[in-house]
Amino acid sequence: MSFNTFGRVFRFTTWGESHGPALGAVIDGCPPGVVLGEADIQPWLDKRRPGTSRFTTQRREPDQVRILSGVFEGRTTGTPISLMIENVDQRSKDYSEVARAYRPGHADYAYDAKYGFRDYRGGGRSSARETAARVAAGAVARAVIPGVRIRAWVEAIGGDAIDPAAFDDAQIDANPFFCPDAAAAARWEEKVDAARKAGSSLGAVIACEATGVPAGWGAPLYAKLDSELAAAIMSINAVKGVEIGDGFAAAALSGEENADPMRPGDNGPTFLANHAGGIAGGIATGQPIRVRAAFKPTSSILTPVPTIASTGEATEIATRGRHDPCVGIRGVPVVEAMVALVLADQSMLHRAQCG
Amino acid sequence: MSFNTFGRVFRFTTWGESHGPALGAVIDGCPPGVVLGEADIQPWLDKRRPGTSRFTTQRREPDQVRILSGVFEGRTTGTPISLMIENVDQRSKDYSEVARAYRPGHADYAYDAKYGFRDYRGGGRSSARETAARVAAGAVARAVIPGVRIRAWVEAIGGDAIDPAAFDDAQIDANPFFCPDAAAAARWEEKVDAARKAGSSLGAVIACEATGVPAGWGAPLYAKLDSELAAAIMSINAVKGVEIGDGFAAAALSGEENADPMRPGDNGPTFLANHAGGIAGGIATGQPIRVRAAFKPTSSILTPVPTIASTGEATEIATRGRHDPCVGIRGVPVVEAMVALVLADQSMLHRAQCG
Amino acid sequence: MSFNTFGRVFRFTTWGESHGPALGAVIDGCPPGVVLGEADIQPWLDKRRPGTSRFTTQRREPDQVRILSGVFEGRTTGTPISLMIENVDQRSKDYSEVARAYRPGHADYAYDAKYGFRDYRGGGRSSARETAARVAAGAVARAVIPGVRIRAWVEAIGGDAIDPAAFDDAQIDANPFFCPDAAAAARWEEKVDAARKAGSSLGAVIACEATGVPAGWGAPLYAKLDSELAAAIMSINAVKGVEIGDGFAAAALSGEENADPMRPGDNGPTFLANHAGGIAGGIATGQPIRVRAAFKPTSSILTPVPTIASTGEATEIATRGRHDPCVGIRGVPVVEAMVALVLADQSMLHRAQCG
Amino acid sequence: MSFNTFGRVFRFTTWGESHGPALGAVIDGCPPGVVLGEADIQPWLDKRRPGTSRFTTQRREPDQVRILSGVFEGRTTGTPISLMIENVDQRSKDYSEVARAYRPGHADYAYDAKYGFRDYRGGGRSSARETAARVAAGAVARAVIPGVRIRAWVEAIGGDAIDPAAFDDAQIDANPFFCPDAAAAARWEEKVDAARKAGSSLGAVIACEATGVPAGWGAPLYAKLDSELAAAIMSINAVKGVEIGDGFAAAALSGEENADPMRPGDNGPTFLANHAGGIAGGIATGQPIRVRAAFKPTSSILTPVPTIASTGEATEIATRGRHDPCVGIRGVPVVEAMVALVLADQSMLHRAQCG
Repeated sequence: MSFNTFGRVFRFTTWGESHGPALGAVIDGCPPGVVLGEADIQPWLDKRRPGTSRFTTQRREPDQVRILSGVFEGRTTGTPISLMIENVDQRSKDYSEVARAYRPGHADYAYDAKYGFRDYRGGGRSSARETAARVAAGAVARAVIPGVRIRAWVEAIGGDAIDPAAFDDAQIDANPFFCPDAAAAARWEEKVDAARKAGSSLGAVIACEATGVPAGWGAPLYAKLDSELAAAIMSINAVKGVEIGDGFAAAALSGEENADPMRPGDNGPTFLANHAGGIAGGIATGQPIRVRAAFKPTSSILTPVPTIASTGEATEIATRGRHDPCVGIRGVPVVEAMVALVLADQSMLHRAQCG
Repeated sequence: MSFNTFGRVFRFTTWGESHGPALGAVIDGCPPGVVLGEADIQPWLDKRRPGTSRFTTQRREPDQVRILSGVFEGRTTGTPISLMIENVDQRSKDYSEVARAYRPGHADYAYDAKYGFRDYRGGGRSSARETAARVAAGAVARAVIPGVRIRAWVEAIGGDAIDPAAFDDAQIDANPFFCPDAAAAARWEEKVDAARKAGSSLGAVIACEATGVPAGWGAPLYAKLDSELAAAIMSINAVKGVEIGDGFAAAALSGEENADPMRPGDNGPTFLANHAGGIAGGIATGQPIRVRAAFKPTSSILTPVPTIASTGEATEIATRGRHDPCVGIRGVPVVEAMVALVLADQSMLHRAQCG
Repeated sequence: MSFNTFGRVFRFTTWGESHGPALGAVIDGCPPGVVLGEADIQPWLDKRRPGTSRFTTQRREPDQVRILSGVFEGRTTGTPISLMIENVDQRSKDYSEVARAYRPGHADYAYDAKYGFRDYRGGGRSSARETAARVAAGAVARAVIPGVRIRAWVEAIGGDAIDPAAFDDAQIDANPFFCPDAAAAARWEEKVDAARKAGSSLGAVIACEATGVPAGWGAPLYAKLDSELAAAIMSINAVKGVEIGDGFAAAALSGEENADPMRPGDNGPTFLANHAGGIAGGIATGQPIRVRAAFKPTSSILTPVPTIASTGEATEIATRGRHDPCVGIRGVPVVEAMVALVLADQSMLHRAQCG
Repeated sequence: MSFNTFGRVFRFTTWGESHGPALGAVIDGCPPGVVLGEADIQPWLDKRRPGTSRFTTQRREPDQVRILSGVFEGRTTGTPISLMIENVDQRSKDYSEVARAYRPGHADYAYDAKYGFRDYRGGGRSSARETAARVAAGAVARAVIPGVRIRAWVEAIGGDAIDPAAFDDAQIDANPFFCPDAAAAARWEEKVDAARKAGSSLGAVIACEATGVPAGWGAPLYAKLDSELAAAIMSINAVKGVEIGDGFAAAALSGEENADPMRPGDNGPTFLANHAGGIAGGIATGQPIRVRAAFKPTSSILTPVPTIASTGEATEIATRGRHDPCVGIRGVPVVEAMVALVLADQSMLHRAQCG
């Protein structure tokens, strides 16, 4: 596995920067015969697309995907699938100040420390634009595991959480926050608007559930399904925490409280609880897979923050330009894509070893 | 990367089951010329060893490591290092009931669903005994990055957390809980004792800090240092959550609150805070790397839990045998080992790409 | 390593089919700061380009490369480098018969057996056009190891070999056969012309030498430099044999005849012979690396060959369309590229492990 | 893939040196439920074992294999299989001179150039003893693909080849040379005896055939079945050339001569020839897979060869000690093992991608 490749058998490699001519993904190892066209990918990109509400960055990108290889007469051939998305609305002029000083919380200083220099335009490779390539690849992954339903939503913004009792699946696509609780969505509208106007930003927690995953996918230990999901989710820009099932809450429980009792069911066991998030010993149990991700607030804020210049002296920086006031919101389709990519890979690994 | 291998250049593969003749690790890609003997590895194994206090499993294992290859005249040769630890105190008779019924929260059912059958003795491959191999490998990793200091501790047991203000590094090795807060250690003694006597168990939160990591190790995105650490930590048995830096707490903050301002320092920038846990854009910033792991309570409890038999009908199971009442405690040296293994690998990857 | 990726640290992934809109390569792991532009890549593509003489396929492709990512202000950034070459001169009409019946010696039948169907246009993924992506990637590899000189040539066509005594480096680029022996080039002109006019084809042997490779690159056993080169060369379409140094000739010798005696030299030892082709125990010795590749004759010939139709019944096929009468000729820059790609990777692996 | 690991899904890692306490292999990714015991592995090791005739090294090693993990109640569990073979008959005193001077043709100088020092006892990691671990792993691979029959033999020693017309499968195990031609075996007896007595050595060509490989295993290009086999075979000590099918001979043919015409058969097509060695476009055609390997003569000879001392000055060395006069002979079970390991891996990869 290289720096920009993810997966073991169903693998994808992404490339591209915020202000380059294009970005894309190459998917290798896709099964043959999967029905696939650009129309199967585009809706997921549209869901992630910037500029669709005032709560996301105002950069306008059509994010039109092109399939350049690996599909013949509407079906995958088993050879690598190259997907490309052109960048249209770059405005490099916005980033002159970034070239001069390191934005705290951004990768600027770390890039210089590592590589000796950096493409400072729009965050370069570390821009959230890269996630468009993931979402496109994720759409292919979904087509590989049609029996699995993957659904993510925002669970909290800036510490204001949804009421689990008010969870309504139908709400998720009915507001610009992917929020399953209408009341919370109303509160967040004000909250995010206020942050946006103040040039501030907010963190968020995203939850994701995958149903229809058969018991048996995954592996013990180093390729634990939990571990693969953690790596995938943590590889998304701005994510700083991952939980499987009850996660940190389980650490506060006793063994009795955390037990997942089983009863005979029609298709394998029925579980009376799912503290484990659908994974035991690294292997899927057949229950819903549950993952949560912590997105830090966008580091780009209008309030000047003390920093150092590339040349070393003290300065401060206020990040102008177009940014998401809460990058976690657009993280929803990205988390879904990463979960889909992990599961497609696991489905194939399981088939390889256990036939 | 295969199912039981971890790492990219500095890679290790572990093997072995709870009740097999031995377990071990093969480390591949270690630099040559590193001074290494069994005496460099044994102390870390001793720290993890079971049976050292009443708060851990009563299985008695000497955990003596043997180096079988890759070292000549006291130095690593650059060829694979094979480490072996013999199992001594297996008691297979304890596990007859486990063969018959699935222990909830354990991997039993998932193994059968995946592999069609399982080595039911002591959890087989999914036993915490496997972590001895990690700790041994981790000792080699430490020798590869002598400038890095890695230190973990228990931060909370069963929801009872240490007082950060009372943090005392010297305390960590002074009590059987790796607890940096003497008052908390006293409370935990009662708490864990009560759980042990009741045949119950408790979850725990482990924190780990690595200092001396140079700015530049890591990579953006899929090989983000955060992502590598998350995969490593989440691959440990019983871990269900991982945080880098402030983790989930950061998701509740605003961009101003989460800012990591920089000031010129003697050796690169001084950071006024470290919300990011020493990693920005996936790359080390030179600040301390901070990681937290959530360990669920040991699933083996004396209270009978409803479950199903291997043959499908309803039954219940109470897990007798020797278990850790709080498996998180012995997770401390394991977390340290995994962090060491990730950092040794990253040090070499960085050198490969950036000289 | 996935199906379409090659390398360990300096890795590249190619994508694209003969008759798709484009083909390309993504290079991951390239060191930062390497001076690179399209002008550094284009000359190597021009060397491989079809339609430049009557001895190669008459397909006309400009093979213009575009760098889509990973380069900023003329230098590599350390992030993935995406290279794209558009297909211009596809003529899908030529391939209708191929859809109907399996061309012997081609991958047609094997693709159907594996994938259930195939992109039959121009050989699909198995077209020699894919090698354009390798040559482009190889140009980047060369830039990573500027001290290494890699040079390939044709050593024999259809069993007619050059005279080693007549070897003249300057001749290689002076004839359309990359032939270092002017007399042999003259003979081959007639030979290949005759084959072309008869709709026949010829096999070839390509030799390659890399000088300036420092002693120490490579590794014992599974990542033996010999093994990496063999995998790389054998991955080229139509290659069916690989030799390192004296190869099969060494198998006919005694230990005395095959000895590579050493004498003290100014920069490490001087070797009095180089039967080993610059590699001992899988590791470079500092002598020239020598590799040879056997290219089978192009399977596309005008003489009808018995075969079976996709539907199973007996038929025969004569392959019309545009083909290289001796695909080995254009294999020269491809072999060079693969050797460069292996050596760039090895240079980084060596630095990773041995500093 | 690391330095000492081979394979993609069915992977094995070997460890151990000639004069260490033991050597072994860890197999990861093996399917569960495969019947396996030490008795399934030992016969293959016995075939490779040194000291069984005067034509191989006189080192006496029982090569008893132990299975340390991954097998429960006689079947593989799907977890890593650790195999260990203890070294018994080391005689380190034989190697004092090797510490002082570089043996030409051996890895001695290259190791020092790479690693800065070396385990000089018996060739260390580069000893042919390492192949015992391959043969043990290969026995497991055979159990994974029971429908495939793999058979290797010696085709030529020191340039003296068998008569193809005299090929008799039953002869292969009837003489100490794995020679299918009784007359050639008689000639080789004299030839190898003479070399042995003179302290000389001879090269050899090994051929291997695998039947029962279903059409479809393999992949185009970088994971071409040809390429995987080439890497596997070339990774064996002393191998300097690999051919698939007609190999270099094909390079001397015309397209008509090299054609592999097909006719309808009972189970897929019947091929009228098999120049391609059972692989087209990197994918198995269902015909026998045919591979050949060139083993150079053992570099250890009694005739003094000019060399340099570790300290740099001119000297000469005559290699005493116990060596195979023709290391290719014992290469036969090793080549078989490597072919089995590649095919087991490919069977699983094929199942992963194509069901």
